[in-house]
Amino acid sequence: MTDHTPTPELVTRNPEQIPGYTYGTDKVSPSPLTLLDLDRLKEAVWLTADDEQALRETAEVLADQAEGMVTAYRARLGDQPWRAGYSGHPDGTPNPEYSAASKPRFDRWIIDACTRPLDQHWLDCQREIGLRHSAVKKNKTDNADSLDRVPMRYLLAFTAVVIATARGFLAAKGAPLEQVDRMHSAPNP
Amino acid sequence: MTDHTPTPELVTRNPEQIPGYTYGTDKVSPSPLTLLDLDRLKEAVWLTADDEQALRETAEVLADQAEGMVTAYRARLGDQPWRAGYSGHPDGTPNPEYSAASKPRFDRWIIDACTRPLDQHWLDCQREIGLRHSAVKKNKTDNADSLDRVPMRYLLAFTAVVIATARGFLAAKGAPLEQVDRMHSAPNP
Repeated sequence: MTDHTPTPELVTRNPEQIPGYTYGTDKVSPSPLTLLDLDRLKEAVWLTADDEQALRETAEVLADQAEGMVTAYRARLGDQPWRAGYSGHPDGTPNPEYSAASKPRFDRWIIDACTRPLDQHWLDCQREIGLRHSAVKKNKTDNADSLDRVPMRYLLAFTAVVIATARGFLAAKGAPLEQVDRMHSAPNP
Repeated sequence: MTDHTPTPELVTRNPEQIPGYTYGTDKVSPSPLTLLDLDRLKEAVWLTADDEQALRETAEVLADQAEGMVTAYRARLGDQPWRAGYSGHPDGTPNPEYSAASKPRFDRWIIDACTRPLDQHWLDCQREIGLRHSAVKKNKTDNADSLDRVPMRYLLAFTAVVIATARGFLAAKGAPLEQVDRMHSAPNP
């Protein structure tokens, strides 16, 4: 499953140069959620200080595998022809330009998920990612013509694939099983 | 973590007698999703025939622990005072009648999640459960007066607690580690 093509420097070191990537800038509109809401979300998922430490370790293991992880996700998505219209043209034919444009942002999402401080920028950017899958902003960043929204149920369902496949990537650098468990289950009571 | 009070027969064997429990009856209004949508959801989470078999094994391990699992969930929820208004009175004071009325349905949800066929009744009932947490139907089943909706982000966040704590319950009957892994990660590519 693991793809050993290293993640490009653009993604690991210079994300601000990725076209359409706006994390932490004033191009991202504010989330209606506050830092109090964020504290509550952290409590709701039972995210502890130990988990936050495990997440930082995760970043070290995953950062240069991000490109391979997203390639693997896309291979899985490609097995489902009815999904093609969300990332290709509306009739499902491929749109290589759109795929190439969105790839480094998707790669960087993995690194951001492990490394970005949980603050107002984080809230704002999570919302921005959601909007870019919804009728509000789908296709706008890359001026693409794919279907105008991804139903949220498919985004939620795909978390199962992300979580299940993460284990192989977390183990790929030879971390002891106990550490793999710890990184995989953060947040974990 | 495991509570060894056995799940009552009402929940394991006679769920149709649980007040307000309507699974598979004509009291549940139809989901707008079709069986085609359901097939797509199964593909989206990568649910295989092996996973469906693992889920049936899971039912055997969890059925008589359902009461203890929900008790554990509620203990965790009780650690978060800002949550009290969703299950107690709006000011957060306890509402033991409402808690007692909703408990057997919550217990039964665990068994249903592992045992019910994935068909139109399943789609309809998942929607019904969602509606009962939303402004459409919150409080109506038990004529309670708690806050009029649970924000969806807290429902989604709580899946992390359900997933992480499931492992201990899956292992509680002495299943070999390999089987615990298989049951815990279904769906699993």
